Amino acid sequence: MDMTLAGETTPGSGSNLRANPLPENTLQEYLSKVLPIVAETRTIITQALQKGFEYSLKPDGSFLTEVDLEVERTIRSRLSTLFPTHGILGEEFPQHSAPSEFHWTIDPIDGTHSFRHRIPLFGTIVALLHQSKPVLGIIDLPGLDRLYSGARGLGCWCNGQRLRLSDLTDESAIGKEILAIGDRKQFVQAGKSQVFDVLMQHHPSVRTYSDCFGHALAIEGAVGAMVDFDLRIWDTAASEILVTEAGGKYVCVRSEGKSDFEARYDVILGKPRVVDWVVQKLKDIPA
Amino acid sequence: MDMTLAGETTPGSGSNLRANPLPENTLQEYLSKVLPIVAETRTIITQALQKGFEYSLKPDGSFLTEVDLEVERTIRSRLSTLFPTHGILGEEFPQHSAPSEFHWTIDPIDGTHSFRHRIPLFGTIVALLHQSKPVLGIIDLPGLDRLYSGARGLGCWCNGQRLRLSDLTDESAIGKEILAIGDRKQFVQAGKSQVFDVLMQHHPSVRTYSDCFGHALAIEGAVGAMVDFDLRIWDTAASEILVTEAGGKYVCVRSEGKSDFEARYDVILGKPRVVDWVVQKLKDIPA
Repeated sequence: MDMTLAGETTPGSGSNLRANPLPENTLQEYLSKVLPIVAETRTIITQALQKGFEYSLKPDGSFLTEVDLEVERTIRSRLSTLFPTHGILGEEFPQHSAPSEFHWTIDPIDGTHSFRHRIPLFGTIVALLHQSKPVLGIIDLPGLDRLYSGARGLGCWCNGQRLRLSDLTDESAIGKEILAIGDRKQFVQAGKSQVFDVLMQHHPSVRTYSDCFGHALAIEGAVGAMVDFDLRIWDTAASEILVTEAGGKYVCVRSEGKSDFEARYDVILGKPRVVDWVVQKLKDIPA
Repeated sequence: MDMTLAGETTPGSGSNLRANPLPENTLQEYLSKVLPIVAETRTIITQALQKGFEYSLKPDGSFLTEVDLEVERTIRSRLSTLFPTHGILGEEFPQHSAPSEFHWTIDPIDGTHSFRHRIPLFGTIVALLHQSKPVLGIIDLPGLDRLYSGARGLGCWCNGQRLRLSDLTDESAIGKEILAIGDRKQFVQAGKSQVFDVLMQHHPSVRTYSDCFGHALAIEGAVGAMVDFDLRIWDTAASEILVTEAGGKYVCVRSEGKSDFEARYDVILGKPRVVDWVVQKLKDIPA
């Protein structure tokens, strides 16, 4: 398979350091301001699950619920007040452009399909881009009571506990790991159903842990890696900073599109040896 | 595909009624006696996750943790005291035969692979067979704080709320449902990898929600159906009674093996129209 390696992020990678002279205490301050917003949206989501909610189909055939809209509206409103000069990119509303080095990305409910069916594997994702690089990330999984957060230089945390990913000591253990992968239809949409099918056939434990649930499992090392294709920036920016802060590896094997708002990303994240194994497998797929 | 329809269970199906003259208050009494055992094993599991646990590999390559053993030992010991004349079939210890119409089945941790990796989608399953037919079932998902229980004539309940599965009004909605499926390797073991691959390719939202997590989602209607192959009796007995009590359909498309203890089962459970759609798809697969 012809594979353009669009980017690779590992802990303390040089390019990252050069691009980002942002002091840690600024990031700490931003994090402490944004976490209460996510606590607020978790309440909105939990209450909606209790009282029920309306949903509709988007033009692309995916679900949209009134809860997606309410959560994104809430996060946008709070961020605009806290950081009036920053830009905002969210899944459900138009981009709020700003001549700023900072842009927030929002996926109010990543995994709306799960949410609409009341499967507890959905979540809210918020990230901060500085000079187009993720520097802060939050993934909240209300259905599992798990909150992942972190920022560059500050580590990656889950429910108050620091996450440190241990890599495999050698390749022979790769088959004992679980490999998480997005829904097959994402790979079909990206014109790469073969990637899904080959991984399914070549690894003994591939599971479709779609959306931020799979990303979160990769960030904490519960799965060896997450392979997720045809993503938007708000699906993946938080994962990039969180997994690298946890000591893992993030590889973007395709990044296509003119702007952050339009681009599509194919990514692999997790334990470095497992990520490398997947990247190698993808290279072996005939074009 | 040559498919022997080994059995089909729908609410109030005649064969079930003839086989089982058991009064409801006996089942209610059994249920009230067994639920505290599952509360006890949930505590064992939760504490093990907090303090850590050892694991090893079984001859078949699957994981076994000390927690599987402790949970099964606890359930066996409590059941033997409560029902000294009943037989017991469990995953980790030899069958306790008894010349009784009643046999309990136990899967102490269904989804040990998930459990060992701390993915919260595992559970404890207990069921009661009367004259070889499931009449009572419990699925406890400690990682999701969800307890499913029910018995013949008493309905199916989750965390105190009665579950009533609504079928699709017509076939056109099948594509909007999520279809849950077991791990691909189970289908490979059953010599039926084609079943997995064909369903993956023919339904837009197939997800590997392995083990009792997928069964529970089918029982509550969060997924349209669960397709799970190469199961043992303790993996599936509870699901049969729970899904039919919820108003769903349970179809066993293969049942092979001399005794309950040795047999392998290929099953589909969930909303009747979705189950029928899967059964039809399987018939279309060339042998």
